[in-house]
Amino acid sequence: MSLPTSTRTALGAIFAADALSTEPAECLAYAYDNSRRESLPDAVVFPTREEQVVALVRLCREHAIPLTARGRGTNTTGASVPVSAGIVASFERMNRILRIDPDNRMAVVEPGVLNADLQAALKPHGFFWAPDPTSAPYCSIAGNIACNAGGPRAVKYGATRDNVLALRAVNGRGESFRCGKPTSKGATGYDLTRLLVGSEGTLAVITEATLKLTPLASDKRTLRATYVDIGAAASAVARIMAQPVTPCALEYMDDQALRLARNHAGGSIPEAGAMLIIEIDGETDALPSAVAAIRKAASVDGLLELHAASDAAEVATLWAARKALSPALRTIAPNKINEDVVVPVSRVPDLIAGLRDISLRHGIPIVTFGHAGNGNIHVNLLYRPEDPTQAANAPACLSEVFDLVFALDGTLSGEHGIGLVKREFMPRAIDAVSLDLMRRIKAQFDPDGILNPGKLLPD
Amino acid sequence: MSLPTSTRTALGAIFAADALSTEPAECLAYAYDNSRRESLPDAVVFPTREEQVVALVRLCREHAIPLTARGRGTNTTGASVPVSAGIVASFERMNRILRIDPDNRMAVVEPGVLNADLQAALKPHGFFWAPDPTSAPYCSIAGNIACNAGGPRAVKYGATRDNVLALRAVNGRGESFRCGKPTSKGATGYDLTRLLVGSEGTLAVITEATLKLTPLASDKRTLRATYVDIGAAASAVARIMAQPVTPCALEYMDDQALRLARNHAGGSIPEAGAMLIIEIDGETDALPSAVAAIRKAASVDGLLELHAASDAAEVATLWAARKALSPALRTIAPNKINEDVVVPVSRVPDLIAGLRDISLRHGIPIVTFGHAGNGNIHVNLLYRPEDPTQAANAPACLSEVFDLVFALDGTLSGEHGIGLVKREFMPRAIDAVSLDLMRRIKAQFDPDGILNPGKLLPD
Ligand SMILES: Cc1cc2nc3c(=O)[nH]c(=O)nc-3n(C[C@H](O)[C@H](O)[C@H](O)COP(=O)(O)OP(=O)(O)OC[C@H]3O[C@@H](n4cnc5c(N)ncnc54)[C@H](O)[C@@H]3O)c2cc1C
Ligand SMILES: Cc1cc2nc3c(=O)[nH]c(=O)nc-3n(C[C@H](O)[C@H](O)[C@H](O)COP(=O)(O)OP(=O)(O)OC[C@H]3O[C@@H](n4cnc5c(N)ncnc54)[C@H](O)[C@@H]3O)c2cc1C
Repeated sequence: MSLPTSTRTALGAIFAADALSTEPAECLAYAYDNSRRESLPDAVVFPTREEQVVALVRLCREHAIPLTARGRGTNTTGASVPVSAGIVASFERMNRILRIDPDNRMAVVEPGVLNADLQAALKPHGFFWAPDPTSAPYCSIAGNIACNAGGPRAVKYGATRDNVLALRAVNGRGESFRCGKPTSKGATGYDLTRLLVGSEGTLAVITEATLKLTPLASDKRTLRATYVDIGAAASAVARIMAQPVTPCALEYMDDQALRLARNHAGGSIPEAGAMLIIEIDGETDALPSAVAAIRKAASVDGLLELHAASDAAEVATLWAARKALSPALRTIAPNKINEDVVVPVSRVPDLIAGLRDISLRHGIPIVTFGHAGNGNIHVNLLYRPEDPTQAANAPACLSEVFDLVFALDGTLSGEHGIGLVKREFMPRAIDAVSLDLMRRIKAQFDPDGILNPGKLLPD
Repeated sequence: MSLPTSTRTALGAIFAADALSTEPAECLAYAYDNSRRESLPDAVVFPTREEQVVALVRLCREHAIPLTARGRGTNTTGASVPVSAGIVASFERMNRILRIDPDNRMAVVEPGVLNADLQAALKPHGFFWAPDPTSAPYCSIAGNIACNAGGPRAVKYGATRDNVLALRAVNGRGESFRCGKPTSKGATGYDLTRLLVGSEGTLAVITEATLKLTPLASDKRTLRATYVDIGAAASAVARIMAQPVTPCALEYMDDQALRLARNHAGGSIPEAGAMLIIEIDGETDALPSAVAAIRKAASVDGLLELHAASDAAEVATLWAARKALSPALRTIAPNKINEDVVVPVSRVPDLIAGLRDISLRHGIPIVTFGHAGNGNIHVNLLYRPEDPTQAANAPACLSEVFDLVFALDGTLSGEHGIGLVKREFMPRAIDAVSLDLMRRIKAQFDPDGILNPGKLLPD
């Protein structure tokens, strides 16, 4: 460990022995995230109270020690990897649901509450919190907030940004503050709450969140639509989103993703050129006409079959297959490059066609799936470093993916964020003046650059 | 006029003669807004292109001239009053709808487009933009954005903050930038877009906005519920918002507001202790069950009558009466103090009861109405300066209103913003660290403090 003894002692004054570790073996568990990047911290601490966070940030500031807040390390961009070592503050033990207030459609939680635990606690009250990343059982609310996480439901209910009312946080000066209010409206000063959403732990450490809840719909229908090819499916997506009934999920898988899904779920997943999973929720009385509207929009040229799931088991199989895709791809291509670009939904067909072309030209298979209703497509470059052609072509291939996305008026990330692995592309996504404003904002919240250095903003 | 000749000449190089005025008579029309505060600018200019705005800001910066952006001056807080004189940039001529893109549920507009003009243009496409201030026919989109304006529909469809995707703007350094993207999701850096929403022209001048559109519901029902007293109505509001069906309007009027409304609309407005206007929209098939759910929730002790409007004329009369309230109150009490506080919706009954008590103690009539579904109550202190008791009590009375609001976990403004008239109360609404962060952000966007000085942040 490279922390001086005096710092170690000061840390020990803030955290009990069982809430602090400098053992490399334990630190290693906090060295990586789902990006597969890795960098060992000098210490890991487990705050349970805001006062500890304040004391910790002050200590880090005094000694210029990098401090990386960590939820559950499920992010895909290296955002929670302590690249400059220093201290990781893991919020896994600060995980109480403080208040569920159905009358005001809100909940107050500590940062480390797991998304799925919150959803389970809300269900008996007839509510949910809209963000529903596939990783819900093992990602934290503060991680969701820091990444502006989404999920299938965002197409109807919004991403994290749209579902946070107020925050408590500690900035890089070690000052705790509150922003927002537990009200559904407010026009009282600059919106610091949304500035923290998506800031990836670089502006402040979140210690409490007041979340906006949504009533559970009384009923739901799940449709499976298969198409001859990805172009047909992409045009169905655009047509569905151009009519008034908004589905509560509109997920897309290309032919290769479907093949993987069949491996997982077997014959219940049909063979096709592409598939959509479409869910429609609402009052039971309203569903027939809503489903009819969606069916009509989904029935483009190239539709093979439009099938309504007949029971809960069938719905579960569909979703299990969809959710297995990311891990399955990782197994067949451990070094795949995983992007989650977003384009205006009418441009999804152009994106899909363009990606196919880029894949062919560079000889790198590209598998696409994702939250198509938001135009948010997960682009997986199944690149194998041991193949010299692929190794040589991968950087240009990725660069062309972004060229395509920018040409279609889209951007780098729909929901995974920037972290470590995408920050070099930020100058292509964000204009120089905006980037400069972001840097200036960062310098105000964190003048010494101790909060999650090396993330989000390029050097 | 107090602009030096050289500055006048430089202005003339940016704006044609018919787009620039230093005549006091013309300047006077740009000296005030709906707050009744007034301060004469030295010049008014009428930009029609972003390049002019860039040149203007640079000129102002060079000569340390205050620059106040102006929509239509309908705000109620003095936000567009040029308190330090200088130049007013009125965006009334930069008013083109640049693009309506139903497939992507978005529209691109110049800042000066009137809210109602946009709504009219969207209607044939089956869409609307959610913010619907009562002032829609004569307020601008940039004014809506700068104030984070709301309106009756916000209870279901969100305020301006929730309905802006991207902006073009010019900061106080005279640098133009873009933020956000025409996509429904995005996790690519800090959220500058929402930082500008509600910033009241103090951070940047908005030159273009990409707005999120919502499909028009196919059908709507309007209910009128009357109660024996305001307490009963307030508890109905809380009950309605605690069940799953969200109305698309939930407006409240107290007994005195009702009396005014009767003056306006006659006998069609019933006599009662309080009234709610409740609208429910959605698919026609779903409306009966939705209306039943709302009826049940609205049927608290003290309900006098729950009446469904039978035709469009009756609906129009109800809304006309509601919309006439603000001007009517102004007529009977020209110096009324007009607040638009917001509290969590379950606290609306406590707010209403507390306000009644404050009113009695200070001998100042208080009339309340507003967007109750959001907990956003317009509190009108009908104070007459010529009454010595009222004049003496008014400051303490207002202060107690805010004490009450803060004690109920509410805040200063739900939708009108801070401007000139509420900024002295900001330190009571926003903690010192957050206020300091806001000041620091302001200094980054506008280092010389030329953009709308004297607004939003206290000295
Ligand atoms: C199988 C799989 C599926 C996924 N599916 C989705 C999906 O559908 N949608 C989606 O959006 N994402 C998805 N993700 C990505 C990931 O789960 C989300 O980004 C999630 O929000 C990360 O939460 P976490 O608790 O794991 O945070 P971490 O990965 O630990 O950290 C993420 C970021 O949050 C910051 N952070 C954590 N806690 C705090 C705090 N208290 N204060 C300040 N900053 C903090 C970290 O510094 C870091 O920058 C998926 C990941 C996996 C592995
Ligand atoms: C009768 C009446 C009813 C009302 N009802 C409602 C209601 O229901 N809900 C509600 O929210 N409000 C309501 N208002 C308040 C007001 O209409 C809104 O605040 C509206 O958004 C102001 O728009 P405007 O174009 O008049 O802006 P202005 O009043 O001209 O300016 C408002 C603010 O916007 C800034 N601004 C204007 N243009 C720009 C630009 N291009 N770039 C940067 N900043 C800019 C100004 O500097 C100022 O700070 C009402 C007002 C009246 C008079």
